[in-house]
Amino acid sequence: MNYEKYYSEKVKGMRPSIIRELLKKYVGKKGLISLAAGNPSPETFPTRIIKKLADEVLEKYGKDALQYGPTPGYSGLIEQIKNFIEERYKIDSSKVGVLITSGAQQVLDLTGMTFLNPGDVVIIEAPTYVAAIDAFAQYGPEFVQVPVDEEGMRVDVLEDKLKKLKAEGKNVKFVYTIPTFQNPGGVTMSEERRKYLLELANKYDFLIIEDDPYHELNYSDKEPPLPIKHWDSEGRVIYSGSFSKILAPGFRVGWIVADPQIIRKFEIVKQRRDLHTSSFCQYIAAEYIKGGYLREHIPKIRAYYKPKLKVMLDALEEYMPEGFEWTKPTGGMFVWVMGPSELNTTSMLEKAVENGVVYVPGEAFYPDRSVKNAMRVDFSYPSEEEIVEGIKRLAKTCKEEGV
Amino acid sequence: MNYEKYYSEKVKGMRPSIIRELLKKYVGKKGLISLAAGNPSPETFPTRIIKKLADEVLEKYGKDALQYGPTPGYSGLIEQIKNFIEERYKIDSSKVGVLITSGAQQVLDLTGMTFLNPGDVVIIEAPTYVAAIDAFAQYGPEFVQVPVDEEGMRVDVLEDKLKKLKAEGKNVKFVYTIPTFQNPGGVTMSEERRKYLLELANKYDFLIIEDDPYHELNYSDKEPPLPIKHWDSEGRVIYSGSFSKILAPGFRVGWIVADPQIIRKFEIVKQRRDLHTSSFCQYIAAEYIKGGYLREHIPKIRAYYKPKLKVMLDALEEYMPEGFEWTKPTGGMFVWVMGPSELNTTSMLEKAVENGVVYVPGEAFYPDRSVKNAMRVDFSYPSEEEIVEGIKRLAKTCKEEGV
Repeated sequence: MNYEKYYSEKVKGMRPSIIRELLKKYVGKKGLISLAAGNPSPETFPTRIIKKLADEVLEKYGKDALQYGPTPGYSGLIEQIKNFIEERYKIDSSKVGVLITSGAQQVLDLTGMTFLNPGDVVIIEAPTYVAAIDAFAQYGPEFVQVPVDEEGMRVDVLEDKLKKLKAEGKNVKFVYTIPTFQNPGGVTMSEERRKYLLELANKYDFLIIEDDPYHELNYSDKEPPLPIKHWDSEGRVIYSGSFSKILAPGFRVGWIVADPQIIRKFEIVKQRRDLHTSSFCQYIAAEYIKGGYLREHIPKIRAYYKPKLKVMLDALEEYMPEGFEWTKPTGGMFVWVMGPSELNTTSMLEKAVENGVVYVPGEAFYPDRSVKNAMRVDFSYPSEEEIVEGIKRLAKTCKEEGV
Repeated sequence: MNYEKYYSEKVKGMRPSIIRELLKKYVGKKGLISLAAGNPSPETFPTRIIKKLADEVLEKYGKDALQYGPTPGYSGLIEQIKNFIEERYKIDSSKVGVLITSGAQQVLDLTGMTFLNPGDVVIIEAPTYVAAIDAFAQYGPEFVQVPVDEEGMRVDVLEDKLKKLKAEGKNVKFVYTIPTFQNPGGVTMSEERRKYLLELANKYDFLIIEDDPYHELNYSDKEPPLPIKHWDSEGRVIYSGSFSKILAPGFRVGWIVADPQIIRKFEIVKQRRDLHTSSFCQYIAAEYIKGGYLREHIPKIRAYYKPKLKVMLDALEEYMPEGFEWTKPTGGMFVWVMGPSELNTTSMLEKAVENGVVYVPGEAFYPDRSVKNAMRVDFSYPSEEEIVEGIKRLAKTCKEEGV
């Protein structure tokens, strides 16, 4: 049977996620080193603690932890998140609402559904997180790209674009940013730019979606700037956090911090999407913060990833041919590698796989697929030996490409 | 700040779920007996087994059970679901695909997104599951209601409506049905009607969404008919199952059985919604089937609910005033009570709450809110004593209403 005629217009053009297709095709292939995945290392999962907490939750709260729960989330977890953002990020938790989501991916979907009419403008960093593009694209917006440099989004370029869009009468709904240890670049927006972005939001009247899953993955002695939400006096920032990098991605638990009116709207949409997030996973996550385990675990994650980042940067320095540049992150999971303008990392991928390494081609991170000469490499999942060997193979492939 | 101007057209008219609002307002109120919730009794949760399985999963599969996973679901769980539907429902699992969802609610949302353009016709049972109406309504369909009697959906009325819709040139995308122990009526579609519904689907060229979360909640000696999917030779049936009533709703794990082409389309939509369902919960669910625990547990659930259903039917018989009728289910969680045509169960609710009982007003189960003289009462959650006392209070309220 052919189902084409049954499909809605909305899904007809949808393509599968580039990264997920890559992983499906290549990962697990014998001898292949993957620098493509965005997976945390299982070495960072606090498995023993999770086991203890799962037991305790079932003993103490079994009836509720296994039952249907409220759509906004388990009140005990909401309380812990409020404590966490107050203590760590100095966000006044009395002025915001919190909604627990089925991973941070759901935040992107709820945001798109709640705010976007077809043709609305969404401003994104270029490059940006692939699955954010896919999530927003469901709702038919026009994407406007703002470049990123070592200090994050170029707010000067943003301002020019805002003026132009205003003159054209375009409706800018929100700016989407990953300000801290960005995906894919690993760069962090400076405090000055964070404040300026907020000023622009107030002046040009748009919302800011602050996607912040990597905030705690800091490997330098200096803490990154506080989240933009910290300085948000008008309620323009919708802040998204996640347990995927500080507990385990397999839980699929994230959270939204926003004005209570917005939280209420998200609640109504989430009712229709999945009723609520797994109660069992929420209870474990709540105990993980409440028992002080999160606070103890973060330094361990940092200590684990810090040398891996160094190994990757050193390997790039040692092996990559002339004409290549890359970001120098101090946190997160990724490095962004840019080659000469003639390089096409999409067409080079086959050769890289033959040489035993896979990365994510840069064009995936641009809705208009305009940048072909870059790629994202991940240092969180492969071992130190694999990172060195993977970069060697990548360098070899680039040399063979002879651009 | 006022956010109205930022909201999309899609969410502007969205109202919160009637049932969830009722529960929020009333449940937990001292002395109030709730016949409103659709919650399984925590007495039916296999908590001890879940604890054992959670431990084993973390020991044996920790690295994968806590990691990101494939969008269609954990392959081990998919395999177990295939075994289950083959063994229990005689569905040829070699011809179908399976996708694991974040609860059966997500099936409704994925279905709406994948198939519905604004104005498409969705045919539903009247009354039907409230959250299905809400999920489909997101995508702007026209609802056509087909009444239900003691043998389920009136397929003769359906046929008349199909003829009329065809003559009007309307595009019927699918029929949504809960054929077994229906919500809210508890009634079961006969085998004959199941087959006739499929014939109509083939003849009038539409899909069937078969929502089947209550199938195993059978309290009579006779098994309900096999799922419609069993007889589906053309690939028209999208079958949805759930762990909420046979393991625990707090896991939020459901599944879809459909043609592999449709599964692939759902996968692409689900990527954008939540990447994938909690790996941890999926692994536990897989071990629950694999270890034979599900098979052992189902008879216990049945034995637990069976007397509660009888208590409710007996109490209705004993206490309800003349002029009231109700369904006589042999499974599920609900009974549907109909009063005289002048009765308005929505306006009666305040008085019921004063008398110490809460139910769900019938109009919630109709998209056009046309039926005011009915209500849904639940026997799964309250104790036997609460059921008797709850029905007494309901009967008293109805008498006071004096219709």
